[in-house]
Amino acid sequence: MNNNILLTDLYELTMLQAYSDHRMSATAVFEFFVRKLPPQRNFLVAAGLEQAVDYLEQLCFTPDELEWLARDGHLSRAFIDSLADFRFTGDLDAMPEGTVFFADEPILRVTAPIAEAQLVESRVVNLLHLQTLIASKAARCVLAAPNHLLVDFGMRRAHGAEAAVAAARASYLAGFDGTATVFAGKRYAIPLFGTMAHSFVQAHVSEEAAFHDFAESHPDNVVLLIDTYDTLRGAEKVIPVAHELARRGIQVKAVRLDSGDLADLSEAVRRLFDENGLAHIKIFASGNIDEYRIKALLQRGAPIDGFGIGTHLDVSADAPYLDCVYKLQEYAGQARRKRSTGKSTWPGRKQVFRYSADDGTIQRDELALADRQGDGCPLLKPVMRDGRRLAALPELARIREHAAAELLRLPPAAASLDERYSYPVHIHDALRRLAREVDRRTMD
Amino acid sequence: MNNNILLTDLYELTMLQAYSDHRMSATAVFEFFVRKLPPQRNFLVAAGLEQAVDYLEQLCFTPDELEWLARDGHLSRAFIDSLADFRFTGDLDAMPEGTVFFADEPILRVTAPIAEAQLVESRVVNLLHLQTLIASKAARCVLAAPNHLLVDFGMRRAHGAEAAVAAARASYLAGFDGTATVFAGKRYAIPLFGTMAHSFVQAHVSEEAAFHDFAESHPDNVVLLIDTYDTLRGAEKVIPVAHELARRGIQVKAVRLDSGDLADLSEAVRRLFDENGLAHIKIFASGNIDEYRIKALLQRGAPIDGFGIGTHLDVSADAPYLDCVYKLQEYAGQARRKRSTGKSTWPGRKQVFRYSADDGTIQRDELALADRQGDGCPLLKPVMRDGRRLAALPELARIREHAAAELLRLPPAAASLDERYSYPVHIHDALRRLAREVDRRTMD
Repeated sequence: MNNNILLTDLYELTMLQAYSDHRMSATAVFEFFVRKLPPQRNFLVAAGLEQAVDYLEQLCFTPDELEWLARDGHLSRAFIDSLADFRFTGDLDAMPEGTVFFADEPILRVTAPIAEAQLVESRVVNLLHLQTLIASKAARCVLAAPNHLLVDFGMRRAHGAEAAVAAARASYLAGFDGTATVFAGKRYAIPLFGTMAHSFVQAHVSEEAAFHDFAESHPDNVVLLIDTYDTLRGAEKVIPVAHELARRGIQVKAVRLDSGDLADLSEAVRRLFDENGLAHIKIFASGNIDEYRIKALLQRGAPIDGFGIGTHLDVSADAPYLDCVYKLQEYAGQARRKRSTGKSTWPGRKQVFRYSADDGTIQRDELALADRQGDGCPLLKPVMRDGRRLAALPELARIREHAAAELLRLPPAAASLDERYSYPVHIHDALRRLAREVDRRTMD
Repeated sequence: MNNNILLTDLYELTMLQAYSDHRMSATAVFEFFVRKLPPQRNFLVAAGLEQAVDYLEQLCFTPDELEWLARDGHLSRAFIDSLADFRFTGDLDAMPEGTVFFADEPILRVTAPIAEAQLVESRVVNLLHLQTLIASKAARCVLAAPNHLLVDFGMRRAHGAEAAVAAARASYLAGFDGTATVFAGKRYAIPLFGTMAHSFVQAHVSEEAAFHDFAESHPDNVVLLIDTYDTLRGAEKVIPVAHELARRGIQVKAVRLDSGDLADLSEAVRRLFDENGLAHIKIFASGNIDEYRIKALLQRGAPIDGFGIGTHLDVSADAPYLDCVYKLQEYAGQARRKRSTGKSTWPGRKQVFRYSADDGTIQRDELALADRQGDGCPLLKPVMRDGRRLAALPELARIREHAAAELLRLPPAAASLDERYSYPVHIHDALRRLAREVDRRTMD
């Protein structure tokens, strides 16, 4: 991911100059949270923290960037010169990636001199939003198809390269088995999947020729795409090819269907293969797949063993953004809040305490001031102090295990794809009192 | 933008190995087009070509990447070694960026040895999709608010850094006045806009103090955010501040509203300022804005001079993806097509011919084979030959002029935001005949 410091909104820089001009350098506390979940989401999965920490640790202005800012003309030369030493020296507390969370709950808290905490707003939101969005969508696919192979196919229609790579990471984190995006495989050691496209079949004189050519080049990974011209005819052509390849020691692992009525077609193809001694060939489906479609296919009993999920995953098509924000909650030791219509926030530095049943199912959360002594489990953990990470962040495989455990702890109603469920998040009394105090102070 | 060659789907590489193993190296023709427009779009605006050309020109494997591919194990060592010399040596024809287009019309055609044309599929689609998506959304905002200042505010919720920068470019190209994203301003010389956030106001003891501090630091660019606590109280506080600043030679240019009922509030604020000698202060609105909301606000007569458009623009929220594809249309001199249910394509190398009325309004397009001699205006132009661009691509300012001219040529029904309109795209007879011929050849 790109850690360029100019990945920010201009107003962060104009505010910084005003803070600098007026010697406002006290400690600020900002928190990242989602104000309201999309109607299609009962829960969210925190993701993107590793990239946010990488960004904060590497943050600085290059001489070229400072020169450009001077030419640009929005900022004063004296202020621009002062940016040469800019570093992030603050503290970061956050929910571990893979943790389930709900509306109003901060998943990240930055405590730093106000200029530092302010400048990073745009990119921190950008990083956490993207991966949380995709991990939350992916988790729904995982809930819809436990025990099925799920692969991210979405690179081409993801919103740019970073979105594609982040989607591969976030979906793997949430329980996917892998991705087709090669760069993500290299960058994050995510298992890669992929065989052939329609163009490969089209470029050959016949489907059979394409199947043979592919199998000879990749004998350990023979997955044949059979819908280029007609799915059932394609499946029929697989039969002699598979038997001939078997005689040469090559096994056809699966076929891929990418169009048409996937329930009817998968059933017909399954029957055809079973009746012709090819019960071992699995059926993999792609094309316009999302969690709703998976659920409908599996409810109809479609004998599909795995799904390639592309566009709908990578752009989170049914809810392409989260109402997430990064808000000032305290400055110079004093709690702050905004009260804009429909956008008011809970002031102060906060913690989320979670209460669970004996079987591990989560039951309710409490949003409280960070210094509250409660018996719930606090979800925000120290991650950075004085601008450096306290310890290595967990590896992706560990995060994936954590996310899997989190999904198992969801109340059944929260795991529903279609029904709306509002998980109880209680606002602690002391926090309500603080909000009223802040309001009295800023009313006039 | 990132030109890494591993930004591709694994199947592109597995196919390449099979092509190589079986000595398939003839020329392939692939075309990029949108199969079907989203119901919310009557037209699209082509964008992203410059980034696609940059990508194609720079494409190569580094030794580190080849080593990683060898360790990864999906490809043979001999094939991986052959990739050391991989370059894109093909031809590219495309519609100029900013051109309006419709379903089934190729906006880009790649003619190259099949391995080269195949490998670039994933990233070429990724690049063209993103900017075309955003330019098309932005064009609708421009149509909704001609003569209003429009600024891209979407970085934080764009899907990653590349999406944010691409959205800034694509929206500027389509007629926006600028962006808040600093990196995009530096990279593409797009005008930058930005003043203050709620956190700036919150960090001060009062709104008045925040307004004074900001004005002193940025006397040439005083835009005051007035909704942090209560919009109308905020506006009242602006009055003495503005008069006092005026005495010191500083003019308040505008206020920004970011919440609440923007029609009612903008009217009340306008009246308040007009009655208090501040008729010159403009009103800028942001917060959950899109073309539908702009249209509704302006229809209600809201006295808003400009809009900051964020999330809804940068994720194209009402239509977050296009059904775009890059399909093999010819290989080794023979036309090809896929016939998958609902996804069949028109074969052969094609051209789009456009017919316009005397006043410039576009009337109908014809999709035909590239060698057809017609009297319509051909929209695809030569861009690259033998892997190199033929000439410098137009500057962003020129593309923006072209896009503005294109929007003026839209039939009024196509420019409607709400009504659906299907622009006539005729399929030429010779193309229909070719499709039947290809089908006869691939049927069995």
